[in-house]
Amino acid sequence: MTAPAMKPDPGAGALPSWSDGPARQSILDFVSRVTTEGGPEFVPVLERIAVFDNDGTLWAERPFPFQGLFVFDRVRALLPEHPEWKDQQPFKAVLENDMKALAATGMAGLVTLVMATHAGMTTEEFDRLAKDWIATARHPKFQRLFTELAYQPMLEVLNYLRANGFKTFVVSGGGVEFMRTFSERIYGIPPDQIVGSSIVTKYEIRDGKPVLVRQPKLNFYDDKEDKPVGINVFIGRRPIAAFGNSDGDFAMLEWVTGGTGARFGLIVHHDDAAREFAYDREAGLATLDRGLDEGPKRGWTMVSVKNDWKRVFPFEAE
Amino acid sequence: MTAPAMKPDPGAGALPSWSDGPARQSILDFVSRVTTEGGPEFVPVLERIAVFDNDGTLWAERPFPFQGLFVFDRVRALLPEHPEWKDQQPFKAVLENDMKALAATGMAGLVTLVMATHAGMTTEEFDRLAKDWIATARHPKFQRLFTELAYQPMLEVLNYLRANGFKTFVVSGGGVEFMRTFSERIYGIPPDQIVGSSIVTKYEIRDGKPVLVRQPKLNFYDDKEDKPVGINVFIGRRPIAAFGNSDGDFAMLEWVTGGTGARFGLIVHHDDAAREFAYDREAGLATLDRGLDEGPKRGWTMVSVKNDWKRVFPFEAE
Repeated sequence: MTAPAMKPDPGAGALPSWSDGPARQSILDFVSRVTTEGGPEFVPVLERIAVFDNDGTLWAERPFPFQGLFVFDRVRALLPEHPEWKDQQPFKAVLENDMKALAATGMAGLVTLVMATHAGMTTEEFDRLAKDWIATARHPKFQRLFTELAYQPMLEVLNYLRANGFKTFVVSGGGVEFMRTFSERIYGIPPDQIVGSSIVTKYEIRDGKPVLVRQPKLNFYDDKEDKPVGINVFIGRRPIAAFGNSDGDFAMLEWVTGGTGARFGLIVHHDDAAREFAYDREAGLATLDRGLDEGPKRGWTMVSVKNDWKRVFPFEAE
Repeated sequence: MTAPAMKPDPGAGALPSWSDGPARQSILDFVSRVTTEGGPEFVPVLERIAVFDNDGTLWAERPFPFQGLFVFDRVRALLPEHPEWKDQQPFKAVLENDMKALAATGMAGLVTLVMATHAGMTTEEFDRLAKDWIATARHPKFQRLFTELAYQPMLEVLNYLRANGFKTFVVSGGGVEFMRTFSERIYGIPPDQIVGSSIVTKYEIRDGKPVLVRQPKLNFYDDKEDKPVGINVFIGRRPIAAFGNSDGDFAMLEWVTGGTGARFGLIVHHDDAAREFAYDREAGLATLDRGLDEGPKRGWTMVSVKNDWKRVFPFEAE
């Protein structure tokens, strides 16, 4: 007696934290199509490039993007050297934990905070400050290290893509030197595969040693229409898959999925207030408005955290 | 009868186009030290980063850096659309092949030429122009494609380092999008491992398709003290080995060899007028002056093309 030949599911066992459903299936189908040798949509390994936004896509971003919380902690730490900050915006808002007053200072206020806390030291000194913070600071809601707040389903996507010959990159509005302090350990993504915002640095010899000194001046802000620009300068090849969660990622998804051949775009929609946070159209720094309307029409995979993710964070019981 | 145990030479057969001598030996020794597990200078694979200048280090650069020859060909091709160039510097100098008049226009003249020929089109259109040129244009002395003028001994170093777990990067003053048209094929270095100069690009939707349009404005000039800056922004980790040939590479070698642990710096000195070109202190764009004096004192390997390279180009008989 012979059983009928069964076609094995190429993705069986893959992406275990994803619910069975169209979102998980769309990832498996895409990978199957681009890796099937001789198939009409086969993509050579060297061209299998996937890009991921960071805040809200690979790790959480509420109540405020985590690098912002690092900035706030630095403002508090530096206050003894800057007593005048008590009466000066945007510092006053940070010290009084007044997020409404901070929001009123807009992007200019955020840039002022970043320059006051992220410049004036060497790259090595900054690296140490960021590493110390990331190793000790805790998330206000979860009371966990921030590196514990990477999304388990997205870690599985990173691994699944790499197991299928993809090179994975972060493309984020976050500071490139901040992200590099944890990306290899948490995401398995090395420093040279992180594209992000940066400030100007200057080469100097100090006490006979070469150093790079961080200047209070923006070099590149890797957001919105500048994400494709950053991808082009840093990666130099149009990716075939892009993952994001806000309208800051819209141009990146548009650029990636606008190429010829098999393309994949995915948007994480944060709709799970119980296990994480729920936000979209009115979220300020992480607004998802245009993407929510246009994503489905453009064939992008829309992920509902509530329905598509069985687990959100690695620390949850399986 | 038993023969005494022989310690095998770990580099036996490696770098065959290098003469036996201190230059070849210094490369083999360095690689042996950083790859010996348990040894005092062992470096984990993820930190084995090596950076290479391009013009004069990986391929030739005379009579003029090859991208400059591409610029000159573009000026001639675009002349019908710009008849006024016949009377305007620096275009006039190019059209009359007057290198002295061109040199008199300085770096400003070169930038004008680059902006007039490298901007105003999409990145895909530029890619096609550069690929067409690199596939057909010939070197005035050797009558070979420019991609045939990569240095055989340096191709061997790239392969040898990669075989020993190194990730290899180009860090060059040349245009990043120009170099990317051939780097994977010739050097085995993918587009995202090329750090170079760039102009500003702008994201636009044209006929419903997303494109990046090249603007006549410099974004980053990756030379001299800005090579360590570029390494930091793009690679995000201090390399442990650097290869250059001119004072434009001095800061890069200083930065790389100024770190702790095993470090390696190498300068190619072009002293072979018979097989290639001989130039150093008065070479203009590729001057080797400070490096010639200070390199040996800093422990950098000084390579004489005449004495250390058995073959210069791949097309020479073995």
